[in-house]
Amino acid sequence: MNYRAVLRYLGQVLNIEALFMIPALLISVGYGEPGGAKAFLLTIAVTFVLGVLLSHLRIRGNIYAREGFVTVALSWIAMSFFGALPFYFSGAIPSFVDCWFETVSGFTTTGASILTEIESLPRGILYWRSFTHWLGGMGVLVFLLAIVPLARGNGDTLHLLRAESPGPAPGKMTPTIRQTSRALYGIYIFLTVLETALLLLGGMPLFDSVTNALATAGTGGFAIKNASIAAYTSPYLQGVIAVFMMLFGVNFNLYYLLLLRNFRSVWKNEELRTYLGLMLCATIVIGIDILPLYQEAGTGKAFLDSFFQVSSIMTTTGFATADFNLWPQLSRLILVLLMFFGASAGSTGGGIKISRLLILGKHMKREMLTMLRPRSVHIARMDGKSLEEDTIRGTTAFLVAYCVICMLSMLLVSLDEFSMETTVTSVIACLNNIGPGLDMVGPTGNYSQFSLISKLILSLDMLFGRLEIFPMLLLFYPRAWKKRV
Amino acid sequence: MNYRAVLRYLGQVLNIEALFMIPALLISVGYGEPGGAKAFLLTIAVTFVLGVLLSHLRIRGNIYAREGFVTVALSWIAMSFFGALPFYFSGAIPSFVDCWFETVSGFTTTGASILTEIESLPRGILYWRSFTHWLGGMGVLVFLLAIVPLARGNGDTLHLLRAESPGPAPGKMTPTIRQTSRALYGIYIFLTVLETALLLLGGMPLFDSVTNALATAGTGGFAIKNASIAAYTSPYLQGVIAVFMMLFGVNFNLYYLLLLRNFRSVWKNEELRTYLGLMLCATIVIGIDILPLYQEAGTGKAFLDSFFQVSSIMTTTGFATADFNLWPQLSRLILVLLMFFGASAGSTGGGIKISRLLILGKHMKREMLTMLRPRSVHIARMDGKSLEEDTIRGTTAFLVAYCVICMLSMLLVSLDEFSMETTVTSVIACLNNIGPGLDMVGPTGNYSQFSLISKLILSLDMLFGRLEIFPMLLLFYPRAWKKRV
Repeated sequence: MNYRAVLRYLGQVLNIEALFMIPALLISVGYGEPGGAKAFLLTIAVTFVLGVLLSHLRIRGNIYAREGFVTVALSWIAMSFFGALPFYFSGAIPSFVDCWFETVSGFTTTGASILTEIESLPRGILYWRSFTHWLGGMGVLVFLLAIVPLARGNGDTLHLLRAESPGPAPGKMTPTIRQTSRALYGIYIFLTVLETALLLLGGMPLFDSVTNALATAGTGGFAIKNASIAAYTSPYLQGVIAVFMMLFGVNFNLYYLLLLRNFRSVWKNEELRTYLGLMLCATIVIGIDILPLYQEAGTGKAFLDSFFQVSSIMTTTGFATADFNLWPQLSRLILVLLMFFGASAGSTGGGIKISRLLILGKHMKREMLTMLRPRSVHIARMDGKSLEEDTIRGTTAFLVAYCVICMLSMLLVSLDEFSMETTVTSVIACLNNIGPGLDMVGPTGNYSQFSLISKLILSLDMLFGRLEIFPMLLLFYPRAWKKRV
Repeated sequence: MNYRAVLRYLGQVLNIEALFMIPALLISVGYGEPGGAKAFLLTIAVTFVLGVLLSHLRIRGNIYAREGFVTVALSWIAMSFFGALPFYFSGAIPSFVDCWFETVSGFTTTGASILTEIESLPRGILYWRSFTHWLGGMGVLVFLLAIVPLARGNGDTLHLLRAESPGPAPGKMTPTIRQTSRALYGIYIFLTVLETALLLLGGMPLFDSVTNALATAGTGGFAIKNASIAAYTSPYLQGVIAVFMMLFGVNFNLYYLLLLRNFRSVWKNEELRTYLGLMLCATIVIGIDILPLYQEAGTGKAFLDSFFQVSSIMTTTGFATADFNLWPQLSRLILVLLMFFGASAGSTGGGIKISRLLILGKHMKREMLTMLRPRSVHIARMDGKSLEEDTIRGTTAFLVAYCVICMLSMLLVSLDEFSMETTVTSVIACLNNIGPGLDMVGPTGNYSQFSLISKLILSLDMLFGRLEIFPMLLLFYPRAWKKRV
């Protein structure tokens, strides 16, 4: 293990985090919140000093895949630790474990909250809380790769990009990692600004527009109102957010292809078609299923609520405009299943990802064909290209690891003796970076009542989910730490 | 598709079923139950006539893998249809869908019942109900292969054995299929008789001993008392049944190895070790978890109940001596997870099977090593031998198919609007051939309240589970029916 290289990257991540806290500091000052301002100032100082110290380490030797995984996992843990300090120093959240839970939930774009009362928080703190979604959504190391001229060649930085980007086989869009990272962040910033503008046009206050756009972009789900997005009753505003959640759940490579005017590849993309198709089907089925509850509000509102909730859950955002915990079982179950499905690879959304589901489905179909004709060679294809055996193997291994983490977490959380629905869906909602589940953790509930241990388990689940299991899992695997594997 | 061959096998299966109904007929006559006797006589006549007609078809050409799958799937459907007739003709169960559900539940060794009152049924009917477990446990085609000199060579009959025997890569224990089938049934009969004798020794009436032994052997779970095995309060009787459930959940190949005095292979068998280890851990954890509920009954009773329930669920039998629906969440969740795990490959138990879980775990570990050292070749091993890539691929495809069936069934059953726990665990309990789930379908509940459609879905799930997905799934796959695949 090349510890120096890992620590150096960690230092650079901390520097970026300190840098991104400056706007929150300014907002605290601007709104006249001395408590928040002091907290940010102190945190920035601590983070920056440590960051500078670490980032001046001289790297010897190369870094390989495992250093990439470890760097990403440790960066996210360190980033969450220091990101939690403003909540703690300002006294906004008294318990440090709760601060940690809230920050991990922010960076991993989960949006699960231990807060029972949100609106009374200082503005600076609220902004930082929403901003963690934005930074976590596209990834801090992707940002690092976009701005810092790192090390020699592309080889080692590709490991970082791979370990942080979601999806079964993340690739480069452009010849160099740096260009890819810049293109990703460029599209990301453009869409975020566009959403903010559209929300402003609909009459949403500036602060609300910015924070809600940041939380939508990261597919996070932290709202700045206790009633989540239901607080904005305008169908236009709810519609804009629903559509943008959907847009941020699309593979960003496709936006890049749009820029290159390669419409054909976008149109033929199997993941996009499946993603939109599933969303449409779920919206229609749930819309019909909940119609009897909407006799007063009307059919239009039923389908808007259905679309909003489907888009929110499938992209793993977690915003709510209706308490789906009270919906019929079919609708509730569809939403729980969509929690697993998640958004597209290469988007800011979490979950298993549609492309993985496609790969798994194609793998299953191929095995069925092999059963029918054992002696023929059957090839699984996606987007016209044959799927590599490595990709399929990695995807099935992901599914197994995913089930293992899911089961172990549920067992540990069940010790809290909350209902089975609460236990099971809290783990699902955290592991898939969604936020709300059912029963106690439903859209109108929160995570405040869990024990200390459950909060730690659930925050680990969020990290497992955001980093797609393996970078985190390798931290617990002794062989990863050996000098020679 | 070689239809003639498929129909000929179907005919032979029906003949065997008719043959096995004769004891039930005799019991009906012996206990003076004219309704039951008439029902069996009529069913035997119909089944036998059709069976003889079909089994006299002359086969042309060979049969291949897909004929093997189709034969097995259709045999089980036909067998369940004709096996349901005695319930219907005797009037014991008025609705035919209920008769079908109960019979499928019997043959697939699920043990889920739509009956609210069991003890008032005629003896002959009760015997047939328990006997379906026994025949379904080891498999009717395995029986056929043991007694009938079938077709040319081993090639085609191996497909039948493979399609009906549980496990990721069922093999032959002996050089010929016929010897293997005979050895399996020999061990099966020996253990069933041994259990009957031990139950008689403990003072259980003869009829009860036989029916309970048949239901244990098949890891079925139909009891002849409303209170299931809790009706027999003797710890000895409960202990005997708990131990025999465990024994019938072991791979029968290992018993054959014991007969050959190859103790080393048995001792080193990874699946056996994992199976017993998991059972021990679950028994201890649940025993401790439920202790507070057993302050009056005592620690011994708590651990006996824990062992009985764990053994019953893990082997997918479904007998109960305690209402685990009322246990703490941790114990309930452990039992639900064990429902998925299931028993060993090559046993009469259902579920995913321990050997599949081992293969999946080893696959995951290998992929982690590949991530750490992408350029090295990593090999997954089981029982000292390297796992073939085909086996791993088949197992991961099984997991995917399993999840798909599970999700679709839950969605359809959720239309009944029972609680989420009822919806989810009823599907899990049927797909894994267990019987009881939680809430409405808990140990003291039953499946009578489900709608017609849900009953059909759940009975299909039982068949999917018993035949391990693919033989049934191929029935719904148009390409399987084409002349040339």
